[in-house]
Amino acid sequence: MFQKFQETAAPEQGPGRLAALRDVLAAEALHGFIVPRSDAHQGEYVAPRDDRLAWLTGFTGSAGYCVALRDSAGVFVDSRYRVQVKAQVADVYTPVDWPEVGLAEWIGEALPEGGRVGFDPWLQAVEPLRALQGKLESVTLERCDNLVDRIWEDQPAPPMGRVFVQSLELAGEAHGDKIARLAGTLGRAKTAVITLPDSIAWLLNIRGSDIARNPVAHGFALLHSDGTLTLFMEHEKLSDLGDHLGPQVSVAPPESFLAAIATLGGPVAIDPATCPVIVADTLAEAGVEMIEAQDPCVLPKACKNEVEIAGSRAAHLRDGAAMVRFLAWLDAQPPGSLSEIDVVTALEGERRATNALRDISFETISGTGAHGAIVHYRVTEKTNARVEDGHLLLVDSGGQYVDGTTDITRTVAVGRVGEEEAHAFTRVLRGMIGISRARWPKGLAGRDLDALARVPLWEAGLDYGHGTGHGVGSYLCVHEGPQRLARTGTVPLMEGMILSNEPGFYREGAYGIRIENLIVVSGAPLLAGATVPEMLSFETLTYVPIDRRLIVTEMLTRAETDWLNAYHATCRARLEPLVEGATKDWLIAATEPL
Amino acid sequence: MFQKFQETAAPEQGPGRLAALRDVLAAEALHGFIVPRSDAHQGEYVAPRDDRLAWLTGFTGSAGYCVALRDSAGVFVDSRYRVQVKAQVADVYTPVDWPEVGLAEWIGEALPEGGRVGFDPWLQAVEPLRALQGKLESVTLERCDNLVDRIWEDQPAPPMGRVFVQSLELAGEAHGDKIARLAGTLGRAKTAVITLPDSIAWLLNIRGSDIARNPVAHGFALLHSDGTLTLFMEHEKLSDLGDHLGPQVSVAPPESFLAAIATLGGPVAIDPATCPVIVADTLAEAGVEMIEAQDPCVLPKACKNEVEIAGSRAAHLRDGAAMVRFLAWLDAQPPGSLSEIDVVTALEGERRATNALRDISFETISGTGAHGAIVHYRVTEKTNARVEDGHLLLVDSGGQYVDGTTDITRTVAVGRVGEEEAHAFTRVLRGMIGISRARWPKGLAGRDLDALARVPLWEAGLDYGHGTGHGVGSYLCVHEGPQRLARTGTVPLMEGMILSNEPGFYREGAYGIRIENLIVVSGAPLLAGATVPEMLSFETLTYVPIDRRLIVTEMLTRAETDWLNAYHATCRARLEPLVEGATKDWLIAATEPL
Repeated sequence: MFQKFQETAAPEQGPGRLAALRDVLAAEALHGFIVPRSDAHQGEYVAPRDDRLAWLTGFTGSAGYCVALRDSAGVFVDSRYRVQVKAQVADVYTPVDWPEVGLAEWIGEALPEGGRVGFDPWLQAVEPLRALQGKLESVTLERCDNLVDRIWEDQPAPPMGRVFVQSLELAGEAHGDKIARLAGTLGRAKTAVITLPDSIAWLLNIRGSDIARNPVAHGFALLHSDGTLTLFMEHEKLSDLGDHLGPQVSVAPPESFLAAIATLGGPVAIDPATCPVIVADTLAEAGVEMIEAQDPCVLPKACKNEVEIAGSRAAHLRDGAAMVRFLAWLDAQPPGSLSEIDVVTALEGERRATNALRDISFETISGTGAHGAIVHYRVTEKTNARVEDGHLLLVDSGGQYVDGTTDITRTVAVGRVGEEEAHAFTRVLRGMIGISRARWPKGLAGRDLDALARVPLWEAGLDYGHGTGHGVGSYLCVHEGPQRLARTGTVPLMEGMILSNEPGFYREGAYGIRIENLIVVSGAPLLAGATVPEMLSFETLTYVPIDRRLIVTEMLTRAETDWLNAYHATCRARLEPLVEGATKDWLIAATEPL
Repeated sequence: MFQKFQETAAPEQGPGRLAALRDVLAAEALHGFIVPRSDAHQGEYVAPRDDRLAWLTGFTGSAGYCVALRDSAGVFVDSRYRVQVKAQVADVYTPVDWPEVGLAEWIGEALPEGGRVGFDPWLQAVEPLRALQGKLESVTLERCDNLVDRIWEDQPAPPMGRVFVQSLELAGEAHGDKIARLAGTLGRAKTAVITLPDSIAWLLNIRGSDIARNPVAHGFALLHSDGTLTLFMEHEKLSDLGDHLGPQVSVAPPESFLAAIATLGGPVAIDPATCPVIVADTLAEAGVEMIEAQDPCVLPKACKNEVEIAGSRAAHLRDGAAMVRFLAWLDAQPPGSLSEIDVVTALEGERRATNALRDISFETISGTGAHGAIVHYRVTEKTNARVEDGHLLLVDSGGQYVDGTTDITRTVAVGRVGEEEAHAFTRVLRGMIGISRARWPKGLAGRDLDALARVPLWEAGLDYGHGTGHGVGSYLCVHEGPQRLARTGTVPLMEGMILSNEPGFYREGAYGIRIENLIVVSGAPLLAGATVPEMLSFETLTYVPIDRRLIVTEMLTRAETDWLNAYHATCRARLEPLVEGATKDWLIAATEPL
């Protein structure tokens, strides 16, 4: 099993560790220290060594900060984690509703004028630090080494996961060609600093195993305008690569990264959203001119090529068959006989049985009844609930396969489910169909389409508090930018971008609903009489039946019913050859037209 | 008649006037001069005196620039005016597709390094000038007096239209209270400079008659944080006001405006989007600290109070009855018997017959057949076309009444109309209904809803090139910011904002379709089981039948059909008591359920 169910928080350790940190603060004449969840690469997952926030406070969420002062310590968590944080941290820590209360505001109120707060310049990115500094009037932020590392005696070593080749058959474009193509996009910059591991993985057609769930390797890269690249990564990690990297790429040890950038001829491009402060500091001290620009890999990586899209279709077919086996098995279990962990275990088992699963793409969310309403619920042995008659069971999961990353949510009825749940489910489904059917003029962004997923819920006074969809990588991170279907999605949607389409509805304390497919932006065929020359639409990648027992047919428009029936017909056509026996019977029944 | 049909352009005068302007350029050692369509108040309509662009070039559109250089002269017009400009200007002028080609780009290519281009600092606003200057690398922009005024021998005098009171019964809030309320919103600023005439009109509960269509008076105002206001306006214009302005307001002659702001204690707030450059220059020279902030009247003016909304309902009822009389008359005329001008004349006649019409709110657009596809078509004696059998006739019009400003578009079938037109009409209607039925969580902006009006068109590869809706004033400008239903509409929609809802479709060279109602943002009632505490919706203000002959009923969803039938039932209920005889018969037939 990839997924674990132990409670990893250790709140009882928090007070002692905080006391030790305060001793260091006093010794350094600092009034506070900022501990972010992030590592130097600003990803969603961190290596055990970098999990300083959890080690210090006990809080294990995927985003947040601790600001440890001499007489108070705030743990800043967003709306996903408000309940969780209270259960995880000892009372020497004060949970803070972030970003409603910002770090600057909280620090400004807690510290007198002249306060000095330290931070690790590897862990803070340029733009967020600038914003924080801009809001702090009388308190100084000071660079320092990591004070948590000083007191963490058994801190794990940096990860040394092996790096392997993502073959051209899966990547669709040789890394030498990618390097040459991107080198031509640097404009005035002579060199671009790349600090995001998935950018490096995509650019070099490599994958890694330094952290869980995301097949990337920690490292830094310098992309030069002459079409060469310097990779700062341990030789030991790269030993399986053979001559894959080729003559355009030279490899240097990570310890030499800062010294190397100090010798660059400018201008050097950095991405202020993600580049560590120490990189900008080093360039500034060396007098190297800096240009601020988005990491040059971000947009090309988001626009998958035909080979990557074909890979994703294949991965989704394999994953869909595993899902159908799981759903058929699930339906055969008597209500009340399973726990949430049983559900996770069975599903991961089906994915493993494909013999192609490299990892799950994130911790499976298996929430039954009221747990379904906790958007980022992760079951542990402590919370593990029974899947009872009358429950909705929400299962959000995905797999990492070498040809693609999947992410799917299905909400299923367990036994007899109430009418309210079916009405809400049908509204969520209508929103999901609204996005699936959309066809729009080239140039629009996710923000321009987001309402299509919400209108059926809004009609009943309902909504959901998360975005409609996030970008998804190609055997890379399951959460990838810059594409988003959300009010914050202002980047135009472009052909090849893979996104999730996952409206939901959550009745706190009662039930949760989410229906999620992955979709890919593709050119829409020109229609007779059309006046818009170039339109885009979504091709659905995920084909797994949607629970017909929860659909109130009369609430659907004819176009929506037609879409659903066609979707189910495709599910049947694609998956029937891959399953047998009872699973096949289940598939046939689950894909009958409405 | 308010509307005139003469061709007002005089292209034959253009070459002589341009030659005279070039003589002045040479005398001033300038390489060019910028002539915008705007006056010092940046409105959509200008007084004859300020119509310099039309006087010089012959181009009469409502937006644009001429950049007159020594050996070329560009006339910059947007997509609405690409055809019109060619017919209106002599060939000494080069039409330029703006904003695709910007002024800076064009000037930069036309002039050598060291070029000097003059502009009138009363007519350029701060932020647009800053943007222009930022893009010009080797050409200098120089403030100068207006060179067109120097050569325009019979230039009309500034308008001296009388100002009258907008009574409390119509305004709903005493101007003294408005001044006190807004004075409290100035933050650090001691004074806010107000240069927009509709802001002044709203703030002081006055209306004017300096320009056509918009009942405003030219002037400037200084709103002080102590709750007093200085109005810079000719005493002669104000002579009908009696003691309306009261003790908080002092009046000064417009000529003293610049001298007065030079003596202000700072900080002084200016709105960079609309404040003339000369104001900022004067403050800067006098060493007065400036703060850039939106005109403090803009948002409060946009959010109409209950009295204004009630006034708008009354104006719409009156205007709706006039529209119904017009539409009933129109349907009774044999195809081919009317011209576009006949249509405009008859409609204005019905509005005048209400005895309440103060002005039309803009030049009526009456476009039959292919003219309907010209979004801003304005019929003249030269273009006047017959309304033929098989045409769609698009009529976009509105009235200025003391209780409200109206704006309505109806597209009607003349004789037997093709199936394509009916299909397109039904899609436009579905979009219009989509906005009308919307209900959304507080906080969203027009951009977030715009797609709802377009999805039915997008499905068929169709779209329209304008926004879905603009803000509308309360017996003020028919185009008002900051509210917009458009991709550029990023200001959250707030209760009381009046907007148009006017999707369309235009088949170039064939026909045009637009259906437009005014709507007002209002709080949506809380529904049972709702989870979103505060939602907004639109109340429709316009009740006039929509041509049932153009609706393909099978294309509507049940919810859309229900909306339309309810809409028509309300039209009948509200308007039936106001009309008689054949008009009443027409109304009954036109509002039968589908």
